[in-house]
Amino acid sequence: MAAASAPLIRVGIVGGTGYTGVELLRLLSRHPNVKLHAITSRKEDGLPVAEMFPNLRGAVDLCFQTPEKAALDQCDVVFFATPHGVAMAQARELIAQGVRVIDLAADFRLQDIAQFEQWYKMPHACPDVLASSVYGLVELNREQIPGAKVIGNPGCYPTTVILGLLPLLQAKKPLIDLSDIVADAKSGVSGAGRKAEVGTLFSEASDSFRAYGVSGHRHHPEIVEQLDRIAGQPVGLTFVPHLVPMIRGMFTTLHLRILPEALDTDFQTLYERHYATEPFVDVMPPGSLPDTRSVRASNTLRISVHRPQGGRKLVVLVVQDNLVKGASGQAIQNMNLMFGLPEATGLEQVAVLP
Amino acid sequence: MAAASAPLIRVGIVGGTGYTGVELLRLLSRHPNVKLHAITSRKEDGLPVAEMFPNLRGAVDLCFQTPEKAALDQCDVVFFATPHGVAMAQARELIAQGVRVIDLAADFRLQDIAQFEQWYKMPHACPDVLASSVYGLVELNREQIPGAKVIGNPGCYPTTVILGLLPLLQAKKPLIDLSDIVADAKSGVSGAGRKAEVGTLFSEASDSFRAYGVSGHRHHPEIVEQLDRIAGQPVGLTFVPHLVPMIRGMFTTLHLRILPEALDTDFQTLYERHYATEPFVDVMPPGSLPDTRSVRASNTLRISVHRPQGGRKLVVLVVQDNLVKGASGQAIQNMNLMFGLPEATGLEQVAVLP
Amino acid sequence: MAAASAPLIRVGIVGGTGYTGVELLRLLSRHPNVKLHAITSRKEDGLPVAEMFPNLRGAVDLCFQTPEKAALDQCDVVFFATPHGVAMAQARELIAQGVRVIDLAADFRLQDIAQFEQWYKMPHACPDVLASSVYGLVELNREQIPGAKVIGNPGCYPTTVILGLLPLLQAKKPLIDLSDIVADAKSGVSGAGRKAEVGTLFSEASDSFRAYGVSGHRHHPEIVEQLDRIAGQPVGLTFVPHLVPMIRGMFTTLHLRILPEALDTDFQTLYERHYATEPFVDVMPPGSLPDTRSVRASNTLRISVHRPQGGRKLVVLVVQDNLVKGASGQAIQNMNLMFGLPEATGLEQVAVLP
Amino acid sequence: MAAASAPLIRVGIVGGTGYTGVELLRLLSRHPNVKLHAITSRKEDGLPVAEMFPNLRGAVDLCFQTPEKAALDQCDVVFFATPHGVAMAQARELIAQGVRVIDLAADFRLQDIAQFEQWYKMPHACPDVLASSVYGLVELNREQIPGAKVIGNPGCYPTTVILGLLPLLQAKKPLIDLSDIVADAKSGVSGAGRKAEVGTLFSEASDSFRAYGVSGHRHHPEIVEQLDRIAGQPVGLTFVPHLVPMIRGMFTTLHLRILPEALDTDFQTLYERHYATEPFVDVMPPGSLPDTRSVRASNTLRISVHRPQGGRKLVVLVVQDNLVKGASGQAIQNMNLMFGLPEATGLEQVAVLP
Repeated sequence: MAAASAPLIRVGIVGGTGYTGVELLRLLSRHPNVKLHAITSRKEDGLPVAEMFPNLRGAVDLCFQTPEKAALDQCDVVFFATPHGVAMAQARELIAQGVRVIDLAADFRLQDIAQFEQWYKMPHACPDVLASSVYGLVELNREQIPGAKVIGNPGCYPTTVILGLLPLLQAKKPLIDLSDIVADAKSGVSGAGRKAEVGTLFSEASDSFRAYGVSGHRHHPEIVEQLDRIAGQPVGLTFVPHLVPMIRGMFTTLHLRILPEALDTDFQTLYERHYATEPFVDVMPPGSLPDTRSVRASNTLRISVHRPQGGRKLVVLVVQDNLVKGASGQAIQNMNLMFGLPEATGLEQVAVLP
Repeated sequence: MAAASAPLIRVGIVGGTGYTGVELLRLLSRHPNVKLHAITSRKEDGLPVAEMFPNLRGAVDLCFQTPEKAALDQCDVVFFATPHGVAMAQARELIAQGVRVIDLAADFRLQDIAQFEQWYKMPHACPDVLASSVYGLVELNREQIPGAKVIGNPGCYPTTVILGLLPLLQAKKPLIDLSDIVADAKSGVSGAGRKAEVGTLFSEASDSFRAYGVSGHRHHPEIVEQLDRIAGQPVGLTFVPHLVPMIRGMFTTLHLRILPEALDTDFQTLYERHYATEPFVDVMPPGSLPDTRSVRASNTLRISVHRPQGGRKLVVLVVQDNLVKGASGQAIQNMNLMFGLPEATGLEQVAVLP
Repeated sequence: MAAASAPLIRVGIVGGTGYTGVELLRLLSRHPNVKLHAITSRKEDGLPVAEMFPNLRGAVDLCFQTPEKAALDQCDVVFFATPHGVAMAQARELIAQGVRVIDLAADFRLQDIAQFEQWYKMPHACPDVLASSVYGLVELNREQIPGAKVIGNPGCYPTTVILGLLPLLQAKKPLIDLSDIVADAKSGVSGAGRKAEVGTLFSEASDSFRAYGVSGHRHHPEIVEQLDRIAGQPVGLTFVPHLVPMIRGMFTTLHLRILPEALDTDFQTLYERHYATEPFVDVMPPGSLPDTRSVRASNTLRISVHRPQGGRKLVVLVVQDNLVKGASGQAIQNMNLMFGLPEATGLEQVAVLP
Repeated sequence: MAAASAPLIRVGIVGGTGYTGVELLRLLSRHPNVKLHAITSRKEDGLPVAEMFPNLRGAVDLCFQTPEKAALDQCDVVFFATPHGVAMAQARELIAQGVRVIDLAADFRLQDIAQFEQWYKMPHACPDVLASSVYGLVELNREQIPGAKVIGNPGCYPTTVILGLLPLLQAKKPLIDLSDIVADAKSGVSGAGRKAEVGTLFSEASDSFRAYGVSGHRHHPEIVEQLDRIAGQPVGLTFVPHLVPMIRGMFTTLHLRILPEALDTDFQTLYERHYATEPFVDVMPPGSLPDTRSVRASNTLRISVHRPQGGRKLVVLVVQDNLVKGASGQAIQNMNLMFGLPEATGLEQVAVLP
């Protein structure tokens, strides 16, 4: 843990009534270098946070406040756990006041503004801030994050797909057919957020399994933008998300075509070496089959690499907790880097199993 | 429904203490043309079936009996809801006595005996009976089933993969790359059977998602044998099964490469026409996203056909109840055909939703 | 089954977009004496019912219609699967046109209008119709139901509590302390209906257990009114409902004080005799422990009677499917009686297990 | 947290292959004052613990060892996460070597040996050690625990029932009818342990609810022994446990009869005052309805007090995580006291919600 004598980071959270908000609070309330300064909700002004989220009783004493009362300009960093579009409206002013911004929504994920506007159906409010923001996938952008004023925290699906492909894309020679990447992804229901909707009612989503967004999902352009950049060429991605009757957890199955000239690659070793020093990426031993519960409530992402029957297909399995490594934990990982803390500070929780 | 005046089919069930057994009983106890004659279990001899399965109280009066007492030779048909290897040991004698056999295990699924012996780790007891048996996928072999003495009831995964591909494989011209078929399949936990095992305990399988059998699954050779035969050439199949925290239900996502010369195919129409007269295959309207609950406890299999962003990949989604169309319902569908009944007799139940 | 030659009952359903609506459709679409005439929804006018509820594809061809188009006056019977207050606004006109009414909401459950108005926060629209209506608990009011023009279909909790107590209350001599009846009840989430609400989202209700309505629940006065009437004296009831992370199913645990003078009662025999001829009430053998899945998707209610350590407390366990015996199945049971059909017509489904 | 300079407590765990074992490891691996010395399993000798429990990968490096290799005599404290009967066979020797013992099974819970032998079907191996052991319910026996050599860690149900009643039993005057205490308790499935059994398979326990142990449960005599002692008189307890389809969590509903002379008691204040300084017992505000997820994976137990309609019954609702406060967390709470650490050391985790 970091030295107790360092000054505490004053943290604000905008829009803390959803699942990424309560998860930020669960983690930050035990972070040794953080002081929770304010949490905003226009609608719930005055309500003790712990009344909405009783798991926080005794751990978080704050009440929701309107943004006006919250004095966010006195924070060192503000997390936006809001719907898309909120962070970009406030980011410029905050950073002008020396406050750093970590957006858990999509406002700073896509550098391609046309793509942003097509998928999120709104104009971008601050293209210049976007241009200077950093995509907060630590394992990809560890060098740029400490200096960033604004972080676009990655989407949950993109985190699994990009980290599942990174060792392949950054290898010295081409290994897989980049024109035919299949990501068959499965998410727990909390990924849909804490919105009152029929489709995610218990009686609708329990004891059933379904696909969604097959014709197009907002995470598709985000993944492609990153993969294109990493690969230095356009990739072809088929991305099919599914809904699993579980609360937390994300499981992505990557089906990849090994290039003929790469059939003798030792993919297991490739992955192990690539992630050898990463604190939150765990390449499992050969033959392992990860399950989402092995990362439940922790910031770890686990990968296992398979080559069925030693053939021409590579199957990469990736698991994470969508609310931690896929959202709030990753955001705190970014914060730690931005403030010079050891990357794992406050994120050492062991996954909860069973 | 069939005329009530027809003589009742005397039915025996061997090994009815598992989930396919209780599901056979649920359905057969309300089948208008069936008289349940006997159900065997060496271990549970004398126990009323309804004591083990309380849903059957008032519907099934039988007690489990040893095979010796059960007089299976007086049956018209015997279902084997047993572990692999049991049916093939008894089939020859039963059919010699004029009893027809429907095996819900794997003894009569694979015509390639070498494959059978490799995957099931036992010699085949009756290759000649196997040679004359019929693979009981009605939508594929409707003509041969009525005359069959022994039916190998298809595995649950193969049912979804084969029916999901059949319109493509039986089309007049090649449509997809047969060397690269990806079946990313997801099953409810009941597919693992009613065996006391740690891995399928509630506390292990609930609120989690995982893959299994990535390096090899017994249904892989079964699927490939059928696809090879239908396509008239070897196919390349990547088959990755996953375990979903739900009781019943199977969802298979097929990722297919459309051949360049077939890019202008109207796949929706192809599927609709192919299955237009099938009572238990429902091709959903364009854009539909099936969920497994829409077939829960029914014999219907639903398919939807997608082409994300109008590109080169075809994504076919298939759902069924693994215990009904994937096992016991399909077995009864076979029985109906074997005894000249309308195919849907006793299988008209509407799926249970929610 | 009833003779196929009888004229079909023309059935209308008002407000079929909820769970009791789809459950009525599941059951009625296979009822041999029913013709579905119309189903209304002002909001969904024109939408095929099977598009909202895909389990009905191929089983129900109707579209939702506005009440104006639906010509409900041409029905023989109309089910109201609506929020409280709708049926009472339309009942008078319908019965004037010879249409019989079965209300699955609360408009005709409470004869005490003051209680109704206190708990449901609305004036009663037709006290005279209410006065002539019958409380549709068949096992209690089998004689009055055939002649009823309007049926108040019982609430789900009241069905379990009343049927769990009926043999005691109708015994020849006092058996339990009527001033201290504890009903600790547990319901699946579908009891909350198909409303978009945060509290019943999957991520809120799954993998958790909670009580609700401890300070007062609308079913409390309904239960008390019936118990008072049956007992012929005021009873004291503690009713604590809980929410179980399952879709369907209701489990009520009754904790009762045996009167000192009744300690030698054979309660098992009392219950067995009381319900000996009931088609849908199953008194289980001594020592049985019912589970809700044993009645899933069926109209059966099961009871077991316990006396822990042979002491002074009687523990009665009651299970039902809240959507069938607790709602739509019971409504059809009423319809069968009203139209002179065998009580079990169309309700013979065996429970789905697993 | 405790000073990092204190010598680390060397901890051994006997039988760590079950759920209380893995939960001890999750918590102890992050405990600042603990060094994990050994974990034993005769069957799994040599297996890395993290291979059986992948959530521990990177957090626990130990392998299972046979007891012979484990050198438990070098530990400061040994936890027994074993079946009943194991701890009492080894306790005498361990404490002779200066090792303290915390048993998570039942060997040291019941002082009444006749009761122990009746319910656990084995003779007690060390009545003298039992006599000097302490029942490790911290909120009851905080004074005796620091000096104890052997702790009997309470059962999960007893923890909820006793703590739910304690303010009433320790009040200055009689408040409730002690002859008629009803504890209607509900537990998640992990309470049944990690044993391969049909009854707790996912397909058996999911989407269903049932009672068990109605005729007698081993926690009944444990609860009664403690209540008798606290009350100074025999109590009458009806205890009905139920199984909830959730992994973790326990919810106990206490139905109590308020004595006529105590009807003016302010029960809310009584409870709040009683537990005002307890770090792990949270008396919720009036009208609160606790859910089990609000304590998931944390050591907190929450209580809310209700008096429906202001009547003669008191309804007390108690929730805990059965594996933490109901088992492993409570055991560590005991350890902290035994070794002079602040009681909450290593147990500050915030509950995981959703």
